[in-house]
Amino acid sequence: MSSMWGNNFKVSLFGESHGQGIGAVVDGVPAGIPIDLEAVQHELNRRAAKGKDLATPRKEGDQIKILSGLFNGRTTGTPIAGVIINENTRSKDYEKTKDLMRPGHADYTASLRYGGFQDYRGGGHFSARVTAPLVFAGAVARAVLKERAPQLKIGSRIVSIKDINDPCKPQIADYQQFKNLIKNPEFPVFTESLELPMLAAIKAAKAAEDSVGGIIEGFAINMVAGLGDPFFESIESRLSALLFSIPAVKGVSFGSGFDLTLKNGSEANDIFRIEEKQVVTQTNHNGGINGGISNGMPLVFQVALKPTPSIGKEQQTINLATMENTTIKIEGRHDPCVVLRAFPVVEAALAICLADFLV
Amino acid sequence: MSSMWGNNFKVSLFGESHGQGIGAVVDGVPAGIPIDLEAVQHELNRRAAKGKDLATPRKEGDQIKILSGLFNGRTTGTPIAGVIINENTRSKDYEKTKDLMRPGHADYTASLRYGGFQDYRGGGHFSARVTAPLVFAGAVARAVLKERAPQLKIGSRIVSIKDINDPCKPQIADYQQFKNLIKNPEFPVFTESLELPMLAAIKAAKAAEDSVGGIIEGFAINMVAGLGDPFFESIESRLSALLFSIPAVKGVSFGSGFDLTLKNGSEANDIFRIEEKQVVTQTNHNGGINGGISNGMPLVFQVALKPTPSIGKEQQTINLATMENTTIKIEGRHDPCVVLRAFPVVEAALAICLADFLV
Amino acid sequence: MSSMWGNNFKVSLFGESHGQGIGAVVDGVPAGIPIDLEAVQHELNRRAAKGKDLATPRKEGDQIKILSGLFNGRTTGTPIAGVIINENTRSKDYEKTKDLMRPGHADYTASLRYGGFQDYRGGGHFSARVTAPLVFAGAVARAVLKERAPQLKIGSRIVSIKDINDPCKPQIADYQQFKNLIKNPEFPVFTESLELPMLAAIKAAKAAEDSVGGIIEGFAINMVAGLGDPFFESIESRLSALLFSIPAVKGVSFGSGFDLTLKNGSEANDIFRIEEKQVVTQTNHNGGINGGISNGMPLVFQVALKPTPSIGKEQQTINLATMENTTIKIEGRHDPCVVLRAFPVVEAALAICLADFLV
Amino acid sequence: MSSMWGNNFKVSLFGESHGQGIGAVVDGVPAGIPIDLEAVQHELNRRAAKGKDLATPRKEGDQIKILSGLFNGRTTGTPIAGVIINENTRSKDYEKTKDLMRPGHADYTASLRYGGFQDYRGGGHFSARVTAPLVFAGAVARAVLKERAPQLKIGSRIVSIKDINDPCKPQIADYQQFKNLIKNPEFPVFTESLELPMLAAIKAAKAAEDSVGGIIEGFAINMVAGLGDPFFESIESRLSALLFSIPAVKGVSFGSGFDLTLKNGSEANDIFRIEEKQVVTQTNHNGGINGGISNGMPLVFQVALKPTPSIGKEQQTINLATMENTTIKIEGRHDPCVVLRAFPVVEAALAICLADFLV
Repeated sequence: MSSMWGNNFKVSLFGESHGQGIGAVVDGVPAGIPIDLEAVQHELNRRAAKGKDLATPRKEGDQIKILSGLFNGRTTGTPIAGVIINENTRSKDYEKTKDLMRPGHADYTASLRYGGFQDYRGGGHFSARVTAPLVFAGAVARAVLKERAPQLKIGSRIVSIKDINDPCKPQIADYQQFKNLIKNPEFPVFTESLELPMLAAIKAAKAAEDSVGGIIEGFAINMVAGLGDPFFESIESRLSALLFSIPAVKGVSFGSGFDLTLKNGSEANDIFRIEEKQVVTQTNHNGGINGGISNGMPLVFQVALKPTPSIGKEQQTINLATMENTTIKIEGRHDPCVVLRAFPVVEAALAICLADFLV
Repeated sequence: MSSMWGNNFKVSLFGESHGQGIGAVVDGVPAGIPIDLEAVQHELNRRAAKGKDLATPRKEGDQIKILSGLFNGRTTGTPIAGVIINENTRSKDYEKTKDLMRPGHADYTASLRYGGFQDYRGGGHFSARVTAPLVFAGAVARAVLKERAPQLKIGSRIVSIKDINDPCKPQIADYQQFKNLIKNPEFPVFTESLELPMLAAIKAAKAAEDSVGGIIEGFAINMVAGLGDPFFESIESRLSALLFSIPAVKGVSFGSGFDLTLKNGSEANDIFRIEEKQVVTQTNHNGGINGGISNGMPLVFQVALKPTPSIGKEQQTINLATMENTTIKIEGRHDPCVVLRAFPVVEAALAICLADFLV
Repeated sequence: MSSMWGNNFKVSLFGESHGQGIGAVVDGVPAGIPIDLEAVQHELNRRAAKGKDLATPRKEGDQIKILSGLFNGRTTGTPIAGVIINENTRSKDYEKTKDLMRPGHADYTASLRYGGFQDYRGGGHFSARVTAPLVFAGAVARAVLKERAPQLKIGSRIVSIKDINDPCKPQIADYQQFKNLIKNPEFPVFTESLELPMLAAIKAAKAAEDSVGGIIEGFAINMVAGLGDPFFESIESRLSALLFSIPAVKGVSFGSGFDLTLKNGSEANDIFRIEEKQVVTQTNHNGGINGGISNGMPLVFQVALKPTPSIGKEQQTINLATMENTTIKIEGRHDPCVVLRAFPVVEAALAICLADFLV
Repeated sequence: MSSMWGNNFKVSLFGESHGQGIGAVVDGVPAGIPIDLEAVQHELNRRAAKGKDLATPRKEGDQIKILSGLFNGRTTGTPIAGVIINENTRSKDYEKTKDLMRPGHADYTASLRYGGFQDYRGGGHFSARVTAPLVFAGAVARAVLKERAPQLKIGSRIVSIKDINDPCKPQIADYQQFKNLIKNPEFPVFTESLELPMLAAIKAAKAAEDSVGGIIEGFAINMVAGLGDPFFESIESRLSALLFSIPAVKGVSFGSGFDLTLKNGSEANDIFRIEEKQVVTQTNHNGGINGGISNGMPLVFQVALKPTPSIGKEQQTINLATMENTTIKIEGRHDPCVVLRAFPVVEAALAICLADFLV
């Protein structure tokens, strides 16, 4: 297996949910980039548990310690290792159910793949907890972008929670002022009035010992034009590979995505225009990407996150040791909706992808 | 840029639409695999032009010539180079419009990326024509799969053409007998009665000098369980990177994809059961993948293809040399719907991805 | 830059001599391999400082802490991160001389490459200290080899210290019993009587505030035959890349190496023979490798290590800040001969290379 | 196996000695680089057969045909495929001896590695003939260097043929004027008077149906300073991996190489000086590389080439089919000394390595 990614800005992830620690080595970062440790920690805090109502009660701390690659507050050009020591683990929670394959989880496939030697506690390396080091790498990537493309901004919004779908169809101009549209950065929805119903849907799922999913849209404005390549190094290819590595992601689309299939070519083609001596497009159905390469319009993509597979409700399943049908009731901590913690991860993936193209 | 892909089964694409030739080097193929040259050519023929009514009138031949890596009908273990010499090119068609940026195409972004040095004739390396070598590589991959996983079968179906959507929601058992469901392999739709209306939609687009897109579903049955890894080497990450390298693909999803966001966790989780001493799932919302690793159920994914950007209709655009707004009317040959040629390419991508995991 | 290596068994190094910590992530290790933590620490201890007479007085501890990838004493199949927290650093030693470019060191080239942002203390990431994580990775590789090729043994010997050259020309049979030939594992020389004169040469260099280099031979016996490939994946290509990444290595040769150029083809060709129904060669001038692939004979290579560039003697040099000629007298700690610490590193490189081919 | 190399400037080799064709795909070349097709062919001609006296009588033509990646005489930024169609092959020569393992060749190891499916004719993919595409890639790399570092020059010289060793120990100034020192570019030796004795040694070997090897020195002057990185991306690591992929290379060293082990640190350290406001070193024992990174002095390395393993003399060997000892007398064509054809290949490897660092 390989938890390494990147052609230029390279990330090597490690760690298990209930092991000694998790972390990442980020390699290929240019020398001399200022790293604001508070900004890095802030990104990790955005991803961390959101309180008892809506996310796992485990208090995750997620204090990152950087072991290398920084000197006098700037990158040295050599690998940057960040480590989070795991605390507050409750390994015992998982032992008694280790042979019960949690539906929707990797327990069964990990057993096949690793011959039963995987760390089964809390999903081990498959845990969404390992997205914390990804967010760390994303924070380093953001610092790189700040130097190399200072005008570029990264954002994300919640498009839907279950069937509560934001009807807003943002235009190019809307993305440019996304910071104004998002009133609550901890619940980034363009149509502000949807925050409460969306939260209610999550709470209802929690009350029912169930879970819900949703759609996140990520975007970058003031994009550097001319990034990417045709075929395997297209922005779509590179970014989707990163996005699908986020646990629970089952769909990725760019621009108008699947809805593009409903249009004629004459509608789907984004018309080029000269405006103020700049090349722009009138619409952005292609999400700012033509032929795999950025055209300078907002880079826009959507990510479908399935409902958290860990639910409190009793479920049918199998005991892999006895090869018998049985039931499972998952104890322990889990989020009723992964969307609330995933948007900083989606942004991190975008930052990493863009940094990989820019360094 | 890099038109190379693969960790183990590696593909290196080359060629431009109107250059001397196109092809691929396939590296990492084990020695001793029988290669049926007719079967390889058959895959290329499936992708090639479909006749004057529905696809580009250019007669593409696409005769593959293998220069290396085969000896006495079997792979040698060393790189396999396949070359298609371009014939019937009409470069002149493109010269007069080279400064007019075709909407929805890579003309503008290629100019940014390659400083105007790209081969602009017919899209150059960005042309869908370069999927022919990808299909060649896929045919080699199929030969590998035939040896390494003889029971595994790869297929695809048309889910939609524009708004004509196949209402069929296939169950696990349906995929197992997909060859019976598809009556016309050149138009693989599960609900047979939709072939005519779908064709009519394409013809209507053609008549209007416009184009349409659609959704293709790819799948593999009798899957090898335990392939893939968490994070960057998940099946989703690896396969999506390949699929998004196919021109016109703007969305990729696995299993129930974006629809999974509408379900509760208790519905979305595919329940494990023991049946005839085998582990199976009752549903397949996760498309045969848990935690990035195959669980043995059919591997199922959907691909959104935008309408062909080349249309005969006059469109607004810019002249990049003069930086003026203008219009373009694309002469030459083009397909009114890319779906009909894309499904063999989607299957090739799947075969390549699986071969990369299996060798 | 990239401190990552490997196609299958992948190593990602990090750390600076006087930073917070050094370490490595090892990715691609199969699941279920038993890891003996004492054996791992033993390899690190072999590399660590040898006492005040012959090596740097810095007491390096080098206690490795494994953060991930192990569970119940076995590998999980997911990345193994090992960290050594730096202690006993004396950063102040380096501040006053930071603009003086130490001859033979990377101070000047690092300034060019990293724009002056590198951690200059003790050579930063360029420090030989970063070979400790390489030895950690090598220890994991040895555990893999023990499972995959239990008969294979790795060893090394000192061929020369400065001009004191071991006249022994070992034959194939000698390598097979190398553990008998090496009387003192901390000073592995085949001609035992050379230990004292070699040590005397090192002590003489130390007394003169100077340093000496030497040649180490690495080898593997009971080799797995059929490893490697022609061209870029030859054993020679892969292993030399690893060996040249060890600081101070300036030459690598296989088998009879440069001396092969003095022979005729009829002498240099190792004659194949059938002995006891096995294919063997009578001589081993090619070091067990034909066409980049192992032939089952002992894999033998030599590594030239230049004298440690850090010496106490005053040297001419430049001040890069003032761009003036000046002199430097390097204070602090340094080894009079890198050979004594390098042979465990050479063995680690060999183990990593073989594990990369075998997993 | 993988005949692909490169992080940025990527080369994918293919072909067998007696297959349909050989070639390379070069990926990652920036757009807009002028390619002089005559200069490319000239490099191939330098490598090709040198006439009946000293090299194989096979007339190899080696006419390169470029299929892609060029447009109007310049690179497009997309992959450049070059193909040489094999002519004048005499496959029958090899059939009768296919079970006889030629000593010093890859016949036996290829049988192990590829299970007997390798193309055994003339060594197949292991043939030195496959260095022709490497020289093609090198010619493209030279074109890149000409744009990116126009002052940089690449050269090579013959240091020894068998025991005839050029006593010249060139100083930094000598390399700067190497074109003056080399009187006969087809036999590049600094001490001109050695050409005849060296040729005599080769002819003597040929007369005796034997072969000889030698040492080639490659170098680059007016080097770009600051290229490379510590550890796995050091110039030494990257370049040695390329050099060892050239058939017959068994040793690689940088600067004074193995002789550095005979010096004290105070001699081996190249003293830095300011001269005419430039940083220079007084000596160049480190071959222009400190800590893996170029320091601007001439990059100098030596390559040991063993005697051509193909010799006319009868040799003992085995029949792998019958597992019996026997003898072989190699018919067909072969070079009495690989050095005469290898120096353009060594230069190509250097050009490729430098282009990979520079793009």
